[in-house]
Amino acid sequence: MPKPAYHILVCTNKRPPGHPRGSCGENDAEAVLEKISTGIEEKMLFGKAITSTSSCLGPCSVGPIVVVYPDGVWYHKVKVEDVDEILDSHIGQGKKVDRLEIPDAMWG
Amino acid sequence: MPKPAYHILVCTNKRPPGHPRGSCGENDAEAVLEKISTGIEEKMLFGKAITSTSSCLGPCSVGPIVVVYPDGVWYHKVKVEDVDEILDSHIGQGKKVDRLEIPDAMWG
Repeated sequence: MPKPAYHILVCTNKRPPGHPRGSCGENDAEAVLEKISTGIEEKMLFGKAITSTSSCLGPCSVGPIVVVYPDGVWYHKVKVEDVDEILDSHIGQGKKVDRLEIPDAMWG
Repeated sequence: MPKPAYHILVCTNKRPPGHPRGSCGENDAEAVLEKISTGIEEKMLFGKAITSTSSCLGPCSVGPIVVVYPDGVWYHKVKVEDVDEILDSHIGQGKKVDRLEIPDAMWG
């Protein structure tokens, strides 16, 4: 495989229901990952982008968290319906999706 | 938490013993992850670097694979004994560890 230009990480960490921290896995992260994975194929982005799961990335309360490297853009509350925009805009055109990015103020 | 400057991904995917593709998990990736995790604390890199596991990244036969973002440096055959150098040189000083990097020729 060629070295990928983009790497899309999806936290799929799952905590038990009712856990005070919540988790990305509880909020459909697996479905988001599946949509990204099939989207990469359907949009012919294979070779340009890869996706993989990640263990806990920290901001569990605003998951699912999706991080796009090398840009270091952290997306939060990502839904299956957001995936096409991330792939078309960010991966396809190099334009991050501002409305999904974790606001600067949320970083401690 | 502050937005981390570095994100160290460790593939910990595990295939059954004897599987033809091999796997990072079969080659002590969990121990490498543990060493990175404790190293971040011991070297006071908390806040500068985070580490997380990843699912399969592709080059299984030369695992364990460790990727440092945002630099996009892919390390292969990483041993526990290599971790101090990665943390001290790459994370601490911004100098990647050339001897551990996947050679360009290995990318298809």
